[in-house]
Amino acid sequence: MSAKNPVLDLFSSGLKVVNLGLESFGETLAGLGVPVVQVDWRPPAGGDTAMIAALDSIANARVDVEAANAEAVERILKSKPVLVGIGTARDVVPGMRPNLVLHAGPPVTWDRMCGPMRGAVIGGLIYEGLAEDRAEAEKLAASGKIDFEPCHHHSSVGPMAGVMTSRMPVWIIENETYGNRAYATLNEGLGKVLRYGAFSGEVLDRLRWMETDLAPILSKALKLHGPLDMRSIIAQVLQMGDEGHNRNRAGTSIVIRELAPHLVMLDESREKISKVLSFMNANDHFFLNLTMPSAKSAVDAAAGIEGSTVITTMARNGTDFGIRISGLGDRWFTGPAGIVEGLYLPGFKAEDAAPDIGDSVITETSGIGGFAMAAAPAIVKFVGGTPADAIAFTEKMYEITLAESEVYKIPVLDFRGTPTAIDLRLVVEKGIMPVINTGIAHREPGIGMVGAGLVKPPENCFKDALAAFAEKYSKAGGTR
Amino acid sequence: MSAKNPVLDLFSSGLKVVNLGLESFGETLAGLGVPVVQVDWRPPAGGDTAMIAALDSIANARVDVEAANAEAVERILKSKPVLVGIGTARDVVPGMRPNLVLHAGPPVTWDRMCGPMRGAVIGGLIYEGLAEDRAEAEKLAASGKIDFEPCHHHSSVGPMAGVMTSRMPVWIIENETYGNRAYATLNEGLGKVLRYGAFSGEVLDRLRWMETDLAPILSKALKLHGPLDMRSIIAQVLQMGDEGHNRNRAGTSIVIRELAPHLVMLDESREKISKVLSFMNANDHFFLNLTMPSAKSAVDAAAGIEGSTVITTMARNGTDFGIRISGLGDRWFTGPAGIVEGLYLPGFKAEDAAPDIGDSVITETSGIGGFAMAAAPAIVKFVGGTPADAIAFTEKMYEITLAESEVYKIPVLDFRGTPTAIDLRLVVEKGIMPVINTGIAHREPGIGMVGAGLVKPPENCFKDALAAFAEKYSKAGGTR
Repeated sequence: MSAKNPVLDLFSSGLKVVNLGLESFGETLAGLGVPVVQVDWRPPAGGDTAMIAALDSIANARVDVEAANAEAVERILKSKPVLVGIGTARDVVPGMRPNLVLHAGPPVTWDRMCGPMRGAVIGGLIYEGLAEDRAEAEKLAASGKIDFEPCHHHSSVGPMAGVMTSRMPVWIIENETYGNRAYATLNEGLGKVLRYGAFSGEVLDRLRWMETDLAPILSKALKLHGPLDMRSIIAQVLQMGDEGHNRNRAGTSIVIRELAPHLVMLDESREKISKVLSFMNANDHFFLNLTMPSAKSAVDAAAGIEGSTVITTMARNGTDFGIRISGLGDRWFTGPAGIVEGLYLPGFKAEDAAPDIGDSVITETSGIGGFAMAAAPAIVKFVGGTPADAIAFTEKMYEITLAESEVYKIPVLDFRGTPTAIDLRLVVEKGIMPVINTGIAHREPGIGMVGAGLVKPPENCFKDALAAFAEKYSKAGGTR
Repeated sequence: MSAKNPVLDLFSSGLKVVNLGLESFGETLAGLGVPVVQVDWRPPAGGDTAMIAALDSIANARVDVEAANAEAVERILKSKPVLVGIGTARDVVPGMRPNLVLHAGPPVTWDRMCGPMRGAVIGGLIYEGLAEDRAEAEKLAASGKIDFEPCHHHSSVGPMAGVMTSRMPVWIIENETYGNRAYATLNEGLGKVLRYGAFSGEVLDRLRWMETDLAPILSKALKLHGPLDMRSIIAQVLQMGDEGHNRNRAGTSIVIRELAPHLVMLDESREKISKVLSFMNANDHFFLNLTMPSAKSAVDAAAGIEGSTVITTMARNGTDFGIRISGLGDRWFTGPAGIVEGLYLPGFKAEDAAPDIGDSVITETSGIGGFAMAAAPAIVKFVGGTPADAIAFTEKMYEITLAESEVYKIPVLDFRGTPTAIDLRLVVEKGIMPVINTGIAHREPGIGMVGAGLVKPPENCFKDALAAFAEKYSKAGGTR
């Protein structure tokens, strides 16, 4: 048993094999009766040598990445989004102007816009009185007289096409901890709506009613109520089967019950107030346009931290998927918008779908939405899959995030905090893409929603961002 | 290998042991290196020979128990409780009269009532104008001039003390499928309330406001809205983290959002309507008094089926826990009310607690509440335990129930229907008591709620019921 030469001993004693990675090697030995311990291992970044070099460079960067990320994490975790009021975009959204159309996702020109975004732009221009009809609107949009800029460049977020124009009413969310604000339009409901690219008369009539009735009435009720603590409400809805992106029945309910006692006190006609209450009751996504700017206000507080690899924006415009990294400022890294896998409404199928679109992935970026699906198992009836999938998605996201929320908790995971602060390094190193659940728009303008499902972002934008980060922060120099 | 005499072979081949029941026998052999297969087995009814004989007798009964139970199961599953209106107890509750006080649980006389039930009776008598103060009320209650009867004898259910008097407004639930109705008072909120035995001025003032304002205003709004489909709403709240007994935040929210658009249309002062909305918003248990009569209307439809062992009532009066069995009609089987294990409000401890009290266990009897805790993991913050416990409780209840709901589904269990229709035979045979979550009242009259938790019913009432069932349905004769 005790050989003088331990190396020789290797050949006389039984083989004990630890197999790293590719399972087939281990399976072959196991088939021969050799005991094998299988270790689940993959090479970092799928063996991409450029990425391994970038990760290595960042590990030896000229800045303290860990300290920078700790700062970013703290800023997201400590953020306290509060709904402070409703304003008109031209009055409150920074840089808003009459000929400016804000849209979802990274920058995109009219000629590259997908169908539903074009539809929403057409609707927005007619709504603003800048065009009479579709033809005029399309001509104007292509003329160069209209500026198209991302919502994200104006402290804003918009679901699906995300079109915001200057007359539209907007929710004003203030991050009480850090003082920054974020904005989003009010949710229009389901069916034919601007955000899914519809621009018919009913769509425009509803937008006008939202401007003249819905927003002013809600604004007054909110003043009577006082600011709504969105952090507290989001924490509650995660205990009520919502995840804050595509399941918002609890959130919408809480907003209604909080505001109703004040709505009824307003010096407005009973009919108008009743219509406001009915409108909210008929639309469970009403709350989405509140979670989005709440999430935006939290991750914005973590943006622009020198040396941080935390992802502070993910967004899609139906053509491109784009991300921004805290330590890389306002620079976008983009890849092709994906096709959503999911459940389609009766009469529609995958060929009808526009590619992935909308700023609503800001919820995932902040650690709720798809990242909190374990809190909302019933969402699988909307986006597909099983409750076990929903739990697995959340559990997977802990592998690419740096922290767990101290406020947003998931009951079924024994009240574990939601996975928060996505680390670009972990995404690339592990090859695990953030999970996103989302609505699906018809690819043609004017039609609307056709389904909902899950989508993965394109890998290349994360790799490009990592390379840029490595270059910027390399000890060898090369700042940009 | 192939011996002529297989019996002799037993002694020459290695022992292979299958150990039934008590694990220590198997463990001893396993310790000696003998391979042991352990089978989890316990003798039926814990080895209680009288109960084994009763089960055996029922298996050979003079009626078709399985067919009777199939009928009871169908009646519970097909029941569709609908909220059709609000009335006054004396006008709508069968048999209600001025000198009648209804209470929770099985029948109990004034001298045997626990503290909180006495407190509620005192409050009820003062509220009815039958007594001026506590002393007068106690004297009247003991005089024999007041009749005390269970809510359950009047198609009604009441949470905690469950006191209902003739002037009180009541919810009217109609079982649309079978036509029977069930009633419950409106929920008073938390803190000092009649149902927990408080009877101070604020308690009585609130009861009067509920009579003059809350009930008439809600009644008119409900008329504008039309009947509320409680089956559909309960199905929804199980997907929103409620279980329908002690977690009712989603249910209360849905009632508010459904009624609010109609409340605002009423020809009542804004202040009065606003107060109604604020009252509901401030009390997440508001919905409990709707799930209770909904559950009652479903199990009542399954009552009185000749030969059925389905449990159609469980209820407690703070002194006794009682059950009724479908095939045994109106007969109660009682045992001592248990002590609730749970979480106490600050300043209170177990010694302050009254024994288990209230008709709210009608929710468990119908297959929600504690039986649906897997749908409401966040409830453990209220009643104690972990989310894993909540899931385990629900899973255990499938062992003593005959069916799964086709409407009430639990997302995290892959949308499995809630365990429905408790079979008395299974409870006794397996020794598994129904799981009940519940509020805890202070043992003295006049104080109120001190906590919430879980409680097990006394085994003897199930055994007594089984013996009575065996006797009634024995082939040997002996009907009663």
